[in-house]
Amino acid sequence: MVIVGGGFAGIHAAKSLAGMPVEVTVVDRSNHHLFQPLLYQVALAVLSPADIAQPIRSILRKQKNVEVLMEEVTGIDTTARRVVLRSGTQLPYDYLALAAGATHSYFGNDRWAELAPGLKTVENALEIRRRVLLAFELAERQVVERGWHPALNFVVIGGGPTGVELAGAISDIAQLYMRHDFRNIDPTKSRVMLLDGGPRVLAAYPADLSAKAEATLKRLGVEVHTNSHVTGVGPGWVEAGGRKFESVVTLWAAGVQASPLGKMLGAPVDHRGCVKVDATLNPAGMPEVFVLGDLAHFEQDGHQVPGVAQPAMQMGDHLARMIAADLAHRPRPAFRYFDKGDMATIGRMSAVAKVEWPFKAHLSGLPAWVTWLTVHIFFLIGFRSRVSVFAAWIWTYFTFTRGARLITGDKQLPGWDDHLSPESTTNNAKAAD
Amino acid sequence: MVIVGGGFAGIHAAKSLAGMPVEVTVVDRSNHHLFQPLLYQVALAVLSPADIAQPIRSILRKQKNVEVLMEEVTGIDTTARRVVLRSGTQLPYDYLALAAGATHSYFGNDRWAELAPGLKTVENALEIRRRVLLAFELAERQVVERGWHPALNFVVIGGGPTGVELAGAISDIAQLYMRHDFRNIDPTKSRVMLLDGGPRVLAAYPADLSAKAEATLKRLGVEVHTNSHVTGVGPGWVEAGGRKFESVVTLWAAGVQASPLGKMLGAPVDHRGCVKVDATLNPAGMPEVFVLGDLAHFEQDGHQVPGVAQPAMQMGDHLARMIAADLAHRPRPAFRYFDKGDMATIGRMSAVAKVEWPFKAHLSGLPAWVTWLTVHIFFLIGFRSRVSVFAAWIWTYFTFTRGARLITGDKQLPGWDDHLSPESTTNNAKAAD
Repeated sequence: MVIVGGGFAGIHAAKSLAGMPVEVTVVDRSNHHLFQPLLYQVALAVLSPADIAQPIRSILRKQKNVEVLMEEVTGIDTTARRVVLRSGTQLPYDYLALAAGATHSYFGNDRWAELAPGLKTVENALEIRRRVLLAFELAERQVVERGWHPALNFVVIGGGPTGVELAGAISDIAQLYMRHDFRNIDPTKSRVMLLDGGPRVLAAYPADLSAKAEATLKRLGVEVHTNSHVTGVGPGWVEAGGRKFESVVTLWAAGVQASPLGKMLGAPVDHRGCVKVDATLNPAGMPEVFVLGDLAHFEQDGHQVPGVAQPAMQMGDHLARMIAADLAHRPRPAFRYFDKGDMATIGRMSAVAKVEWPFKAHLSGLPAWVTWLTVHIFFLIGFRSRVSVFAAWIWTYFTFTRGARLITGDKQLPGWDDHLSPESTTNNAKAAD
Repeated sequence: MVIVGGGFAGIHAAKSLAGMPVEVTVVDRSNHHLFQPLLYQVALAVLSPADIAQPIRSILRKQKNVEVLMEEVTGIDTTARRVVLRSGTQLPYDYLALAAGATHSYFGNDRWAELAPGLKTVENALEIRRRVLLAFELAERQVVERGWHPALNFVVIGGGPTGVELAGAISDIAQLYMRHDFRNIDPTKSRVMLLDGGPRVLAAYPADLSAKAEATLKRLGVEVHTNSHVTGVGPGWVEAGGRKFESVVTLWAAGVQASPLGKMLGAPVDHRGCVKVDATLNPAGMPEVFVLGDLAHFEQDGHQVPGVAQPAMQMGDHLARMIAADLAHRPRPAFRYFDKGDMATIGRMSAVAKVEWPFKAHLSGLPAWVTWLTVHIFFLIGFRSRVSVFAAWIWTYFTFTRGARLITGDKQLPGWDDHLSPESTTNNAKAAD
């Protein structure tokens, strides 16, 4: 069996097959499994990448029926039952579990990617960290050098969980963590804007939690602009809902699209490229192919199961049950998503949570945040990560210091020098005057 | 006063001036102070960059007479008493403390830099980590794809403390930490070669400790080639002492040269570009300029003080005493380096140490390593770093797992595809056969 992808679905699939008479090859173009729900904390300098990433081959080290290949899959030949690697090598399979995930969608405007990075990989997170921290440094420097600095406006595009978490965390950095570090600028005068094309943030959540989230964001000073569909992104600005927003750092959390590998199966896909699968997670007419995680379009009780961590893990776990059924010549059991709920943090010590299990509740504020904390520590793969992440959080929350405030790589911001002028600054220029 | 550089000398200089009637500006092109003695542990996947790096402005946050500027210094006008920034802005000074440090020297062969990265910055460390970890992944992949892999030869050029520490740590990774992670290659068959142009490793140490270090390296399986001056570096090979060594990853730890800012003072410099300073750390005829750290060529009792952390810290601390003397119209006190000793680790739980204070001794093996551990934890700036570094070490040493085994960035190695062929492999090809 070949498993493509070392995310939640792929890792759970490989682990579930432990001890079974199946030879498994896990192929991923990166060497690490990522605990994606905490990636925004790497982007905003709370955690280090290694706190939430572990080598795939370390995770599966003890499982003798698994080998791991760090390589990119560029094609799938479902007729010959082969996976095509970037080198041209073909990897034959009897079973294929495709769990290649999703990436950002810029809705056809791929040139926006450089101007407004999204958050899917460790590299993305480090790029966002670099930009956000650099904006404050460049502003401080510019006051010394030219006597003014552009307004420290941060624009986050997309009001889903990632957008809400990023906006809340940037506000925290500016309002709490940096306030005593600068002499010439006042970081607390930064503006954080969250833009969403729809009528409310966290559209997938119940309406009362959306309202709570928006209220919390506003209390943190985040400007929430709903019904503001983005029509343009340039260096130093974003155009949305007929308005032009100035921006020194723009982040993208608006849309996802499925891995292009989904379409290569030749089976029906939805508008985002997710492969439509039946109750046993197979595309139509391909019983030897399973599609897992957010690459799968799986409907249950008339609703599409969301592309988050929980269903991905459960699909991975379910794979072993189906293979066991095949080996015993029994019919495969149908997959059913067991929804325990969903949650998103909003800045320091606040969150919203829709709890489905072990009881049903809508939580917000500190109770939701404590729930979030507990669940995320519990699900982190690896004991070391649990300890180091927990230690970093305690440190951050009690000392108001962020442990990973590191700028690495290029020292430029797109548009900083070319597209911002003293005339265009609308707030905190010369904050020190 | 302007302090150029946020290394050990610059940070200690700024801290020593706390509470004095001096306005201080610290200028550094990077936003963080780096605990350089542990940088090789970032390069070899034990620690995360944030464990040993802290924002300069956080360190100096509470010191109201200090401001921090993240900017590159490109020139010095000693006549007009101005520091020139990359933007062209000039920063006037009454006192200048130049602590801009040193960087690698490729002895005029700058094209070797891409082929054999050195270890000075966080970016360097991540690049070395990327290459070393990637070599194992590419070898594993290549066995699957083509049935063989190039010999996993790692060549470290330069037998000083950095070279010895890198070679020992690579050997540890290959021999201990990766042995159960691969299915097609045998990482324990890797070869690590340490090349030095001189007759012994750790040339600055007493001869008995050099011999101990070489013996320990050999016990770890490191091949030590002394009297092997490097004459060529290419993709996949190194030429030294008339021999050609194959290499999948080449690292440079051979030479340092002073920051080019040293020469811009117009004062006498030595062959490495270090500025010759007198007993009060001034270049000839410039009482308002101090040169600190490894940019200074300071002689004491007929010997040049080495370019390591301890003298840099002491020079920084001494600055305040000299400024205080100026303010009181007293003569400046002379600087005297108080040498407490020097040490280098060699792989897991071994080291050599030349102790000068509080007693004189030559230590090696485990006692030297325990000394090294204690000193390094004690001198780490910031309580959080102490805790997280200590936790990472305990984890690493007891579980034989490295916490930061993360490959980020480009997925290629120079020379891997072009310059290595099945014929050229001399060892562990098809290790799994």
